[in-house]
Amino acid sequence: MDYKTIAIEKHAQWKGKLEIASRAELNTFEDLAIAYTPGVAYPCIAIKENPELSFELTRRWNTVAVVTDGTAVLGLGDIGPEAGMPVMEGKCVLFKEFGGVDAVPLCVRSKNPDEIVKTISLLAGSFGGVNLEDIAAPRCFEIEEKLKEACDIPVFHDDQHGTAVVVLSGIRNALKITGKKPEDVKIAMSGAGAAGTAIAKLLVHAGFKNVSLADLNGVIASDIEYKDASLSKLSKITNPDKIHGTIKQILVDADIFIGVSAPNLLTEDMVKSMAKDPVIFAMANPIPEIMPETAKKAGAKIVATGRSDYPNQINNVLAFPGIFRGALDVRAKEINIDMKLAAADAIASLVTDEDREKGIIIPSPFNKNTAKNVAEAVAKAAVDSGVARK
Amino acid sequence: MDYKTIAIEKHAQWKGKLEIASRAELNTFEDLAIAYTPGVAYPCIAIKENPELSFELTRRWNTVAVVTDGTAVLGLGDIGPEAGMPVMEGKCVLFKEFGGVDAVPLCVRSKNPDEIVKTISLLAGSFGGVNLEDIAAPRCFEIEEKLKEACDIPVFHDDQHGTAVVVLSGIRNALKITGKKPEDVKIAMSGAGAAGTAIAKLLVHAGFKNVSLADLNGVIASDIEYKDASLSKLSKITNPDKIHGTIKQILVDADIFIGVSAPNLLTEDMVKSMAKDPVIFAMANPIPEIMPETAKKAGAKIVATGRSDYPNQINNVLAFPGIFRGALDVRAKEINIDMKLAAADAIASLVTDEDREKGIIIPSPFNKNTAKNVAEAVAKAAVDSGVARK
Repeated sequence: MDYKTIAIEKHAQWKGKLEIASRAELNTFEDLAIAYTPGVAYPCIAIKENPELSFELTRRWNTVAVVTDGTAVLGLGDIGPEAGMPVMEGKCVLFKEFGGVDAVPLCVRSKNPDEIVKTISLLAGSFGGVNLEDIAAPRCFEIEEKLKEACDIPVFHDDQHGTAVVVLSGIRNALKITGKKPEDVKIAMSGAGAAGTAIAKLLVHAGFKNVSLADLNGVIASDIEYKDASLSKLSKITNPDKIHGTIKQILVDADIFIGVSAPNLLTEDMVKSMAKDPVIFAMANPIPEIMPETAKKAGAKIVATGRSDYPNQINNVLAFPGIFRGALDVRAKEINIDMKLAAADAIASLVTDEDREKGIIIPSPFNKNTAKNVAEAVAKAAVDSGVARK
Repeated sequence: MDYKTIAIEKHAQWKGKLEIASRAELNTFEDLAIAYTPGVAYPCIAIKENPELSFELTRRWNTVAVVTDGTAVLGLGDIGPEAGMPVMEGKCVLFKEFGGVDAVPLCVRSKNPDEIVKTISLLAGSFGGVNLEDIAAPRCFEIEEKLKEACDIPVFHDDQHGTAVVVLSGIRNALKITGKKPEDVKIAMSGAGAAGTAIAKLLVHAGFKNVSLADLNGVIASDIEYKDASLSKLSKITNPDKIHGTIKQILVDADIFIGVSAPNLLTEDMVKSMAKDPVIFAMANPIPEIMPETAKKAGAKIVATGRSDYPNQINNVLAFPGIFRGALDVRAKEINIDMKLAAADAIASLVTDEDREKGIIIPSPFNKNTAKNVAEAVAKAAVDSGVARK
């Protein structure tokens, strides 16, 4: 299919993939008097007296801002806020269709982290949550961290945490197939950007004891000094054996490869150097670190990619609609590690024994139960970890 | 009717008067591949190459931010951004229902004009226009002025200009009834806040040569010094006879009274002191400067109020949906004086001779032609005055 022609044509027809819909009828003076003046004064006064009522009497309870600065849109790089809008609109449509969440796209004309944080934090009273999207690393870490400090609502950078949650869910199922345990496996990662960093952190939190990452400058190790605060932190929780070198070195005897880096980076020989039953997550898009056929030929037991035309697509839509649905449902103050781990388990549990026999470790994005299951698990984890306000 | 009980109950049922609706179906991998990755990359690239295409390939062409800081919500004063949301949602519903405009409520947690301007200007790439709402004077003037400078899309403070447009439309019809001419009539105004200031300015632009305003400190006159920049400017274009005193003094022999001030301020004696066939706009809400019955008894020829339970309601919904519809339709850079005057004439023209014989000078807010007529007139004025980009 010629995506270029069709996508431009469809977008020109849609003239926007989302719109505002009214939930209040306004056909008579009486209608106007309740939804607008003078009646509307009473919900206003009620919220003034108890600001939490903004979650009951307005749409705040269900509304998430989808925020970008347009600096890392898809694989297109820094294309600016206006050019990021088609992706943000698409994301908002996914939020609604899969999670029933009302999402509003906000593309910010600034690359200054403090300006972006200020802008969004001043709007936090209008929203129940903030989803950061397509913001380049390492700026995305600073923005997320400062925004969490400044806001009383959940802030979630999907490119980091959504991806990490789905990868973890896939690894859970892969280990069921290979019969290995989290504390025993060795994981080699390629790419230490937004997604790579978040995946590594979540894996360590989930009990994986041997995770190493390589980026263009080599394997990240605690005995190397980093100017970048994010890499420095990462070096302290990964690479327990302080291996130096490139991805090639850390792949030797590794059980799992996770690539969020560049096309065709993984060779057959590298796969062959891995431990028995190697598991490959090759998520560079659209061309993965290794094509699934090649990986299988080299002995890979299971392969996942970012592509919809192969099995085991690592698709964030499995995570973010349900995560926000669950967080909003219990009015969570934040989306914490427990909630992310719960989401990963909920996604993993949708894969059946029968699926696993066929090498399936990730459910289809169109599995209708996903968002609901994830939401329930996330809501429970929020309550259990004490961050629910409802 | 007990508005309090019903309004709270209805708002609790609605759980938000607006929501996001999807315009793109997402049922298959194919749908996802066009509305989202990988297909969405192509509209992104197209907008990067030509940013104006954000008005063709996203919802920007039809989307307006409805912005408040919550400092002057209805007659409730400074109740804060969260408590202002029910009004903003109501406004957004009116935008959609009457003008087909997608409006997004943004309540800003700041009272600092520069912070508000910065916040909204950084988001201007996501919207086709900005409607400022319920921001206290004189801060609203500064915010509007600076935001217009900072933005390449129309910025319109409805409490000022929407009200001014509807009042002017009513005056046009009132003069048809009384047979007087703009350049001859004397207008006395009570109140020099956001609405009063904008009404006075628009009337002067529309050719009214004798407009005077009184506020709590007395009649505004050019031989008095004002710290407030807005009052200082106003003093130079109003009160040609440099009358000092209170509203009482400027009402003597006035043809038209316009009140945007306080309940029961206008006495029967004051009305009797006016010229023949006095016209009264008593817009304090919910209790006007004089009740229509009392005004009529004192000799008023025509009375308009802000209330829906009397004829001639000065309701901004007659203006803002059509004004933004027209501005968006021709992608206007701003909403200028010509466009406001055109809107006033379009609203005025919906009142028939038959209406006027009954003392009707303002059309019903439910007249289905209003927004369409206003939009056409505003779009034409934008093109004629050179601010249309389409």
